[in-house]
Amino acid sequence: MDNLYQLLAQHYDEMVEIRRHLHENPELSHEEVETPKYIAAYHRALGYEVREFVGGRGVVAKLHGAKPGKTVALRADFDALAIHEQNTFSYKSKIDGKMHACGHDGHTATLLVLAKVLNKLREKIAGTIVFIHQFGEEVTPGGALPMIEDGCLDGVDVIYGTHLSAGVPLGTISVKEGHLMAAADGFEITIHGKGGHGASPHDTKDAVMIGSQFVVSAQQVVGRRVNPVRPAVVSVCHFEAVNPFNVIADSAILKGTVRTFDAEVRDQIEKELEEVVKSACLLYGADYTYTYNRGYSPVINDAETTRHFMEEVTNVPKVEKLVVADLAMGGEDFAYYLEKVPGTFYFTGAKNPEWEIAYPHHHPKFDIDERALLIAANTLGHATLSYLQQS
Amino acid sequence: MDNLYQLLAQHYDEMVEIRRHLHENPELSHEEVETPKYIAAYHRALGYEVREFVGGRGVVAKLHGAKPGKTVALRADFDALAIHEQNTFSYKSKIDGKMHACGHDGHTATLLVLAKVLNKLREKIAGTIVFIHQFGEEVTPGGALPMIEDGCLDGVDVIYGTHLSAGVPLGTISVKEGHLMAAADGFEITIHGKGGHGASPHDTKDAVMIGSQFVVSAQQVVGRRVNPVRPAVVSVCHFEAVNPFNVIADSAILKGTVRTFDAEVRDQIEKELEEVVKSACLLYGADYTYTYNRGYSPVINDAETTRHFMEEVTNVPKVEKLVVADLAMGGEDFAYYLEKVPGTFYFTGAKNPEWEIAYPHHHPKFDIDERALLIAANTLGHATLSYLQQS
Amino acid sequence: MDNLYQLLAQHYDEMVEIRRHLHENPELSHEEVETPKYIAAYHRALGYEVREFVGGRGVVAKLHGAKPGKTVALRADFDALAIHEQNTFSYKSKIDGKMHACGHDGHTATLLVLAKVLNKLREKIAGTIVFIHQFGEEVTPGGALPMIEDGCLDGVDVIYGTHLSAGVPLGTISVKEGHLMAAADGFEITIHGKGGHGASPHDTKDAVMIGSQFVVSAQQVVGRRVNPVRPAVVSVCHFEAVNPFNVIADSAILKGTVRTFDAEVRDQIEKELEEVVKSACLLYGADYTYTYNRGYSPVINDAETTRHFMEEVTNVPKVEKLVVADLAMGGEDFAYYLEKVPGTFYFTGAKNPEWEIAYPHHHPKFDIDERALLIAANTLGHATLSYLQQS
Amino acid sequence: MDNLYQLLAQHYDEMVEIRRHLHENPELSHEEVETPKYIAAYHRALGYEVREFVGGRGVVAKLHGAKPGKTVALRADFDALAIHEQNTFSYKSKIDGKMHACGHDGHTATLLVLAKVLNKLREKIAGTIVFIHQFGEEVTPGGALPMIEDGCLDGVDVIYGTHLSAGVPLGTISVKEGHLMAAADGFEITIHGKGGHGASPHDTKDAVMIGSQFVVSAQQVVGRRVNPVRPAVVSVCHFEAVNPFNVIADSAILKGTVRTFDAEVRDQIEKELEEVVKSACLLYGADYTYTYNRGYSPVINDAETTRHFMEEVTNVPKVEKLVVADLAMGGEDFAYYLEKVPGTFYFTGAKNPEWEIAYPHHHPKFDIDERALLIAANTLGHATLSYLQQS
Repeated sequence: MDNLYQLLAQHYDEMVEIRRHLHENPELSHEEVETPKYIAAYHRALGYEVREFVGGRGVVAKLHGAKPGKTVALRADFDALAIHEQNTFSYKSKIDGKMHACGHDGHTATLLVLAKVLNKLREKIAGTIVFIHQFGEEVTPGGALPMIEDGCLDGVDVIYGTHLSAGVPLGTISVKEGHLMAAADGFEITIHGKGGHGASPHDTKDAVMIGSQFVVSAQQVVGRRVNPVRPAVVSVCHFEAVNPFNVIADSAILKGTVRTFDAEVRDQIEKELEEVVKSACLLYGADYTYTYNRGYSPVINDAETTRHFMEEVTNVPKVEKLVVADLAMGGEDFAYYLEKVPGTFYFTGAKNPEWEIAYPHHHPKFDIDERALLIAANTLGHATLSYLQQS
Repeated sequence: MDNLYQLLAQHYDEMVEIRRHLHENPELSHEEVETPKYIAAYHRALGYEVREFVGGRGVVAKLHGAKPGKTVALRADFDALAIHEQNTFSYKSKIDGKMHACGHDGHTATLLVLAKVLNKLREKIAGTIVFIHQFGEEVTPGGALPMIEDGCLDGVDVIYGTHLSAGVPLGTISVKEGHLMAAADGFEITIHGKGGHGASPHDTKDAVMIGSQFVVSAQQVVGRRVNPVRPAVVSVCHFEAVNPFNVIADSAILKGTVRTFDAEVRDQIEKELEEVVKSACLLYGADYTYTYNRGYSPVINDAETTRHFMEEVTNVPKVEKLVVADLAMGGEDFAYYLEKVPGTFYFTGAKNPEWEIAYPHHHPKFDIDERALLIAANTLGHATLSYLQQS
Repeated sequence: MDNLYQLLAQHYDEMVEIRRHLHENPELSHEEVETPKYIAAYHRALGYEVREFVGGRGVVAKLHGAKPGKTVALRADFDALAIHEQNTFSYKSKIDGKMHACGHDGHTATLLVLAKVLNKLREKIAGTIVFIHQFGEEVTPGGALPMIEDGCLDGVDVIYGTHLSAGVPLGTISVKEGHLMAAADGFEITIHGKGGHGASPHDTKDAVMIGSQFVVSAQQVVGRRVNPVRPAVVSVCHFEAVNPFNVIADSAILKGTVRTFDAEVRDQIEKELEEVVKSACLLYGADYTYTYNRGYSPVINDAETTRHFMEEVTNVPKVEKLVVADLAMGGEDFAYYLEKVPGTFYFTGAKNPEWEIAYPHHHPKFDIDERALLIAANTLGHATLSYLQQS
Repeated sequence: MDNLYQLLAQHYDEMVEIRRHLHENPELSHEEVETPKYIAAYHRALGYEVREFVGGRGVVAKLHGAKPGKTVALRADFDALAIHEQNTFSYKSKIDGKMHACGHDGHTATLLVLAKVLNKLREKIAGTIVFIHQFGEEVTPGGALPMIEDGCLDGVDVIYGTHLSAGVPLGTISVKEGHLMAAADGFEITIHGKGGHGASPHDTKDAVMIGSQFVVSAQQVVGRRVNPVRPAVVSVCHFEAVNPFNVIADSAILKGTVRTFDAEVRDQIEKELEEVVKSACLLYGADYTYTYNRGYSPVINDAETTRHFMEEVTNVPKVEKLVVADLAMGGEDFAYYLEKVPGTFYFTGAKNPEWEIAYPHHHPKFDIDERALLIAANTLGHATLSYLQQS
């Protein structure tokens, strides 16, 4: 294990170099072409068996250890966002309107260099390591499901993944067993009212009133209907009824998001939001259309794997602190891997200690402390070898 | 008086002709050029003293009776609407997207022919008759105020005006003393919240929620705050907060209309709607901007003039029935004339008895029974002569 | 007619005396015993044909004029209220907790003395005059309906009645044709939810929440559903869900009142309030019971009779001013007489000009300016004789 | 340790006997007299140093081990509830309207017998064991705070306590580190409106409307203002505005409960509920009084102690299963001990495996499987000795 850490430390500069190269050349989700090509070439140069276009645009490489054993998968995502970078450092995005503003460049750099280092340790490894480079994490439906369907988890016993986090201080690992990240769903409602003159509400079915009643009453689902120890969010984000000031709205379009951790609560909210719309329409005899779009499943870390990870991670070099993560309301399609095999997803602190506040993920000035790459590599490497050794 | 009716009947065909000419050539409010030119030419041909460009685009002609006396003003508006006509009769609008869909063509035809006929009776007339042809009634600020400022009411003792009404049967006159038509105001509100991720409402000031709360609570002003025997309407017609489904709204724009008949209630609602916004913002610490735009004043018919009109109108030929009008929630800038001089505004039924239902005013298939032109001319003429005779 | 006024003026002191006697001896609605006995005795002393116990506790006397003619009915109510008088004048109520706090003592005194005076004019009268002394006006179901069923309107052609009003200045008569006073209905709702621990709302159907949603949404019926020119009020006055602070309500009882002037609006609100309850229950799967209790019909003055009354009333001695009454949201079972025969109900000003403000009706310090009794007698007498003379 | 389990098993019958004796003789919170006397006598009979009337009605006994060491406290509460027992077994409550319906009889029996057994092991014990018998847990302010102020925790290094749970199957221990049970607060609001006639809402400040708006809007605090991963409940349980159906409410009284786990969220809700009231009053210019009454603090288990407890507890005889507890919205004043010293509070399953459903705590038919007493004693004993041995 000490070899691992030394080798990673020696290759830290390469990680940074790769990360910066990717940062300069972002590609949007489901449009990735050069990035997977780059990844595949890197693995091939190491002599790995590489599969491209897995599930679409994914890349999978495999390391077969010298001895037989279990199979560990490691996953990094590589897509970027439609954001115009406002950072001014030399390696900022070369492409207007596209940016690695979520750290996936770092995930990929970490995994590539880790693959190189583990390759050097091949003789001591009993088992197989699968490097899963995933496309399209940011945009539903993500890349995880098609890659799984295309066999990326075949034979895999356990999976690990990490997300660099600008909200967690450098040196800290944040993780918890069980529910970690939310199911992130969407809904869209159209109120089909009846327009008319603003002076004659009684001749109309006022879609702005009905939509507003829905917005207000929807919080009753959160506050009165859902088990209060099962966190849930319902946010109506979009309300569109564009009319002259004196013409009562014929229709209104509302869009929003629902976050839950629990399958039962998720089903309940999907159903009860419709009751709220129905109820708001009732007095006016108005109609509605309601569609509920399921996003990623919640990320649920396996208990045993995660407890084991938590027991040992504080011994990994550069890890100064372990915190039990709060539930995170964001979504991640790492969830789907965890529905198939046990494993652990965790946050690697990437907030420079000298930053007063960090720009949040998806912000045009988002940045990471690059030293976090080494910590991500150390911990993923540790988890992998520890699992294979103990099995 | 009998002469009047006979002459008008003899000129009925000309009224129809003029009305159809105007109907084919609509001009939008505040863009009228040919219409006032046409009107001025007509009056000049009769030998009238004519003032053009009164208050902008208005035309005023004056008949001086053979003997001295009081001064009566008669008003007709002449602007058309930005509506694409769907009628198929031969004299339909020649201009795409513009239409006389409110009967102002008929008002003008009536007044012109009435001017011609009264001119023939000049020898018997003791007093002055002012023909006010008003531009821009449909769009605030209307033409009435600038025409008044430009002197169209100078020396006037009383004013009469009528509106052809597709909702009132042919042969019926609908009028009441006191409040007849509403003050029609507008308001615009911007909620200045704080946007953010749909999963983190606690880090935001949700402008859609705040706006919706305003919409729902605004009805408390109508239902709980205003004296219930003082009719009032508050309609929020426009709600605009266009965002991705998972991004909580930073701001929201709401627009609506307020209708009242009573100055005190009007002031009260202007003030209390702001309290409702303030109240909705309070919990979130959000800001708002609120502007209240006063439209036309309410139309308030003078008691004495109107009682007198009502007592006599059923004796006018072709008038079959007098009904006490319901309060009408629409607005009319005839209100401003009535703020200056006593007078009466009334509805002349123009619904063909064979129509099952009439298309409402401002509808692309709006139409009138042209026989109403004669009734409008008879009643306006009667009111004028009756007033001058009794004075 | 001049005789009438002179005679009434001569008997003014008697009116005051009778009114004070009745004021000292109030009897509650539907418990009247001595008052009708007193009334019957008075009429009998005049030689009238008297019917007692009409419809229960009513008294009806009839004057047959010397000549044949039409029949006019005059109505006065005579019940008092369960209010403890706080006035200190010598003739204040002798009975704790009962008070003539609405002026019915004055109505009765007026009608009795008017009967005496008309009797003296009998020789000149062509027609019949029916004096209707009604019990139980204050408490639904009132005395009017049973008295009508018991024949008090048989043969009657027209009816007049007045209410002394502490809100209208002495010398003023306030009246309007058509709708004058509201239909005053009640409703009662029980929300049948499901109680439970305050910490576990998801296991309950929270009756306080459902009831509160009803209260808030009910104003949408007033503000959005009813024609805004048809005044309507919905007030929820009673909300009862008495529980420990941490036990979610199993049920809630709500009571309220509805005021309307229009049969269609009345039906609409009865129906739509139930939609509001249903809608509030929907999300929670809760049940409800809803009962709507119709009170008095709206008072609707006959157009012709009332116009005639309004034209002449300013000529009656002591009447200084006629005002067109505002719609009044209170109820009156005079409505039922007007459903059977044409007639006019009006307010006789009884506010002493030196009072800064008058205590409202039903207040423990309610009082009238007694000079109003003479004005009430003059106007009722005038209306009666004018009607009989013109017929 | 094996000795401990054997001895406890041998004394199981005595536990049952004591528990049944206490069950037959319940005493209400803050009225306990015989129960503490009984407890004190039991400890004295064992030769313990006993302090009575600690903080009021508490009893504290101390075991000094043969060797020096750390100090462990164990706590059992002994108050009963004002519930009329509906069980029919022979040892049911002898006192009408009082009942051990929460298992405190079992807690006490467990601790007494454990004290007897540990006394027998005294020679092997290095350290001190403090037996805290607490009064008044069910009714705020509970007995914990005054007992702490009276010194019951002086010198204590760690504390353990358990609650028998009818909702957890026999053989299962349910526990988690960090937040376990909620802060349970109350609030009371009076809306000071202005009453009036139901027909004249504009002359009033309608307290039922304002209160209802508060009830509906309060859920916005839960759904929009509080961090969604910090569970919170706001329940309005009491709404009292008792009026005639046609008299608008002058005032309304609302009472409710708030549950939180997080000090910051607790402060936030206390503050923001007042903003909601203020906001509801704003439009009406009404006043309010608002009082927020803090109940018990949240129960927060110490991380290290609890992890250690969880690692070992499955080795304890009769413990078949360990589950990570859900957050519980109920409150417990064990919270206050944990604010002073580290420790662990856990649930000992007491649901008989043959019961289809268990009657909940505080139900008149509440019961426990008495075999849970032995498991509670085993686990408390184990935690105590394990702690002293390792220190």
